[in-house]
Amino acid sequence: MNQRTQVAIIGAGPSGLLLGQLLHKAGIDNVIVERQSGDYVLGRIRAGILEQVTVDLLREAGVGERVGREGVVHHSIELVFAGTRHPIDVHGLTGGKVVTAYGQTELTKDLMEARAAAGLQTVYEAADVSLHGHDGDAPVVRYRKDGQSRELRCDFIAGCDGFHGVSRATVKDHVTEFERVYPFGWLGVLADVPPVSPHAIVYGNSERGFSLCSMRSMTRSRYYVQCPLDDKVEDWSDQRFWDELRRRLDPELAQKVVTGPSIEKSIAPLRSFVAEPLRFGRLFLAGDAGHIVPPTGAKGLNLAATDVKYLSSAFIEHYAERSDAGIDSYSQRCLRRIWKAERFSWWLTNLMHRFPDTDGFGQRVQEAELDYLVNSRAASTALAENYVGLPL
Amino acid sequence: MNQRTQVAIIGAGPSGLLLGQLLHKAGIDNVIVERQSGDYVLGRIRAGILEQVTVDLLREAGVGERVGREGVVHHSIELVFAGTRHPIDVHGLTGGKVVTAYGQTELTKDLMEARAAAGLQTVYEAADVSLHGHDGDAPVVRYRKDGQSRELRCDFIAGCDGFHGVSRATVKDHVTEFERVYPFGWLGVLADVPPVSPHAIVYGNSERGFSLCSMRSMTRSRYYVQCPLDDKVEDWSDQRFWDELRRRLDPELAQKVVTGPSIEKSIAPLRSFVAEPLRFGRLFLAGDAGHIVPPTGAKGLNLAATDVKYLSSAFIEHYAERSDAGIDSYSQRCLRRIWKAERFSWWLTNLMHRFPDTDGFGQRVQEAELDYLVNSRAASTALAENYVGLPL
Repeated sequence: MNQRTQVAIIGAGPSGLLLGQLLHKAGIDNVIVERQSGDYVLGRIRAGILEQVTVDLLREAGVGERVGREGVVHHSIELVFAGTRHPIDVHGLTGGKVVTAYGQTELTKDLMEARAAAGLQTVYEAADVSLHGHDGDAPVVRYRKDGQSRELRCDFIAGCDGFHGVSRATVKDHVTEFERVYPFGWLGVLADVPPVSPHAIVYGNSERGFSLCSMRSMTRSRYYVQCPLDDKVEDWSDQRFWDELRRRLDPELAQKVVTGPSIEKSIAPLRSFVAEPLRFGRLFLAGDAGHIVPPTGAKGLNLAATDVKYLSSAFIEHYAERSDAGIDSYSQRCLRRIWKAERFSWWLTNLMHRFPDTDGFGQRVQEAELDYLVNSRAASTALAENYVGLPL
Repeated sequence: MNQRTQVAIIGAGPSGLLLGQLLHKAGIDNVIVERQSGDYVLGRIRAGILEQVTVDLLREAGVGERVGREGVVHHSIELVFAGTRHPIDVHGLTGGKVVTAYGQTELTKDLMEARAAAGLQTVYEAADVSLHGHDGDAPVVRYRKDGQSRELRCDFIAGCDGFHGVSRATVKDHVTEFERVYPFGWLGVLADVPPVSPHAIVYGNSERGFSLCSMRSMTRSRYYVQCPLDDKVEDWSDQRFWDELRRRLDPELAQKVVTGPSIEKSIAPLRSFVAEPLRFGRLFLAGDAGHIVPPTGAKGLNLAATDVKYLSSAFIEHYAERSDAGIDSYSQRCLRRIWKAERFSWWLTNLMHRFPDTDGFGQRVQEAELDYLVNSRAASTALAENYVGLPL
């Protein structure tokens, strides 16, 4: 069974769905091919902090209505260290910019619904996906669906299929990989309890390790504590988790934590990763397929959105203006922004965590940097402008 | 032969001399005991960039006249990387603050002359200096001079005798040491040629390594290139040095470098070091005796001056106001400022040098940080405010 489209999108996560929506708005035909089921995609618990650039892009794609209504705007973040709270007025320091807390699951749901409403095709549970011909003029995506071999011919392939997807694997011999792994993980708990800090994400540095108080909505909270990489989820009862989180906060905040049964609990490793380049003829990598950041800076989903913005513009230029300028500069434009976000995420991860191999000098430097950061307007502004997202 | 004074100062470098001068102005009797000869002290080629705080302190000590006349005020610094020059308007970014280029040798000369003019005693070439009784009420400094044993009784001992001095060694069992060594050295050349950049220090990051264009006056320049730690000065002819320096700058600047015979050439290792605490009963560490920074941030002499400011204030409070508040808080006050300068010097060293063990990720992060730094007003301001010296 053969089919033709203008842009074949691999992966129905937020990157692929958002790209499909933006292309559709511009009259560009697209089909999404996804290895998993729709329910599986929705079940993945991921990021929840959106930069203004990302929210704007969702509006542009026609899916900004619910995030505008239900997303919780944060004007500040809070750093807790040495047992003391230090608010950073992100809004004031950046001339009015904010971030919005809105779960990735909700965002994916909005995008899926918009795609369904527009009658656009998503092939879920596509097995044995393989990419061909991206070096020439006629790329082809092959896969099996319901036991049948299918072929999707296209002008371009957008690889939005994440870190473990087939897109980057297809060009692995032509990719330079940059990587940093961190000697700890994040134990995350999702619970239907009101957030301890409903107006600011709280980043905690304590002798016991990093902690993060975040939220998905006013009734659903997301908390994390740094843990050894070889810890198992079974080692962490809900009670142990809440006790540990409280110990890592200042006493006032600790007292305010409302506990409840976890509805999701998992341990994730932290990784920095960048593939260069992001374009291979008519195949383009976007989002996690091309780069990973540790979650500390909340940059993963936002970087994916920026890739998608650049990529959709490039395709629109190609079809509407018959210019390949955007296509030719895609990799370079993305990578410049990606590396700044990689640097920020790496820096914030280093600043806020306890590293098992840190010597006394490193520990004192971390303390001095925190002391400097919250007492210097320039340094606080640098943190804030990165947090809300550097200008495009 | 016995003698008594209020404050015994160990070391006749800039810290000890400046402390002596400030105490003398406040009517506090002091004697300096120095292991080397005056000529030896003057022969040491060291730092040359003074923060405003340091210049102000020199004025307060009555030795600000020549630095005010001959010191060269810098309103900016320049970063050179990827073959391009990026000026940082330090003056504009900090609301009018500057640094002053003035050789440490000249500063030492000014302080020595002021000390001689005031008739204050400096014991040069004091052998076998040892410190006693700082844990009690009656400290004693013992030494040999011209073959004779001498004893200097005092109220307080100020250890201004540098990294290798007897002061820290005396209390080494009670000191916690924090240290970081760097896997490269600086090859420095002093030459009587006009500086390539008479109005700004130039910091260069190139694939060949770090370079620095600095100056002592409009006719005396100080240049550095990063080199392997096991290089020997004999390996570096003047010609090789000038060729290497030019290769590490952008082409325009490289062309402007005026070369000439070196009048001093040396290779120095880079080290970060802090001793905690800085007070041991009636013995106080100040300057290099308590901490070392890599020269990248030009902070060594300036940190010493700040220590001396806090220490002189503490002694003046003790004698004039009969309050030991300054004495009791000396270590903590100094260390808070020291650690911020240590962090800055470590950060700038990491940012500007090539590290032999840096992986691709680290290299890209360095490039992204430089890109961010020169394009963000907040980040440039953070650099500038540290460079001119954080508020006391």
